[in-house]
Amino acid sequence: MSQVDISKKILSANDQIALQVQKMLDERGLFGLNVMGSPGAGKTSVILATAKALKGRLKAAVIEGDIASRVDADKVAAAGIPVHQINTGGMCHLDAPMVRDALDKLETEGADLLIIENVGNLVCPNEFALGARGRALIASVPEGDDKPLKYPAMFQDADAVVLNKMDLLPYIDFDLPAYRRLLLALNPDVAFFPLSCKTGEGVAEWADWLAQKAKGE
Amino acid sequence: MSQVDISKKILSANDQIALQVQKMLDERGLFGLNVMGSPGAGKTSVILATAKALKGRLKAAVIEGDIASRVDADKVAAAGIPVHQINTGGMCHLDAPMVRDALDKLETEGADLLIIENVGNLVCPNEFALGARGRALIASVPEGDDKPLKYPAMFQDADAVVLNKMDLLPYIDFDLPAYRRLLLALNPDVAFFPLSCKTGEGVAEWADWLAQKAKGE
Repeated sequence: MSQVDISKKILSANDQIALQVQKMLDERGLFGLNVMGSPGAGKTSVILATAKALKGRLKAAVIEGDIASRVDADKVAAAGIPVHQINTGGMCHLDAPMVRDALDKLETEGADLLIIENVGNLVCPNEFALGARGRALIASVPEGDDKPLKYPAMFQDADAVVLNKMDLLPYIDFDLPAYRRLLLALNPDVAFFPLSCKTGEGVAEWADWLAQKAKGE
Repeated sequence: MSQVDISKKILSANDQIALQVQKMLDERGLFGLNVMGSPGAGKTSVILATAKALKGRLKAAVIEGDIASRVDADKVAAAGIPVHQINTGGMCHLDAPMVRDALDKLETEGADLLIIENVGNLVCPNEFALGARGRALIASVPEGDDKPLKYPAMFQDADAVVLNKMDLLPYIDFDLPAYRRLLLALNPDVAFFPLSCKTGEGVAEWADWLAQKAKGE
């Protein structure tokens, strides 16, 4: 019993700070997007492709979450996008206090969109609210078409699922219609975007959806 | 301070049961292999290819760990291998008590090798001993060549790293020599096996290493 109580208290403290973060983002005119997915799904590539596709419409700032290294932040900075790197040490997800602290260090003047790349993990990041109004799960074709079945919570909680690396479909045994059916059975309201950051296929549709969402349309 | 103490107590309880499990495996003449890796790295495919490659030399039994579903256990059972499925609910790794309970339900008579497929997660499964004497990390080419840098602990703790899906190398920007250097810098004693479950390339070398390890050579 005491374990459950402690866990509830921790979650509730996180949720309170998430509400603070959401207010901070609203005041700065930022739409927050919590980007989750497995290691290697291509979260950073999707973020870079999205920022490029939204050029002239919406300006993005990025918070990068990783266990270690600043590989991803360096890639984002090289594209001229304001970025702050969080290293969680061993922690397997971001939490609201980390995002609040990062917001103090990140220049968001003139930005409309705050993209928060969570730690690569398909199990639990969805359990920790970050104060973002949107949640996107980045999956990828090489991960296989059974992932929604094996990691249902992450797919159930997403506003949008992006299926990246569609360019690899010819080389992989992946049943796209079955994947779509499985996903919609778990999460009937989800927006689904198969795309390829390599070829650019499908990126515009995803970026359009995000732009509408960010503008509250 | 109190958080750290609680965490130490939990780990220590797990470690104690892990020692029990190790003893159980020794008594049954089983070499335990804890198989870890990202969702979609191909852990189950590697297990199936390994069992096939070891046919006539070593007989495997398998414990499957997943958040939900018994997709993987069904695949293993279909190959005629004794298997027990653990569903962790939301938990992002297996622990020693789960493996101990599974051993009560799994027929291991005549088997030499117990392969334990952990939950797909590149962050923390290495922190929980399962009583297995060997640890293998299954990575895959589409995950990208920067993963050891971003998730160092999992790569540092492995006895062997298998790099699966080598058949996709021609279609992906992946620097194999750089990956090998990065891996060996983190873990100089690691055995490294690039392979493809699809083409069979490299599977024999990995299976030979495992057979030697299991026989204590």
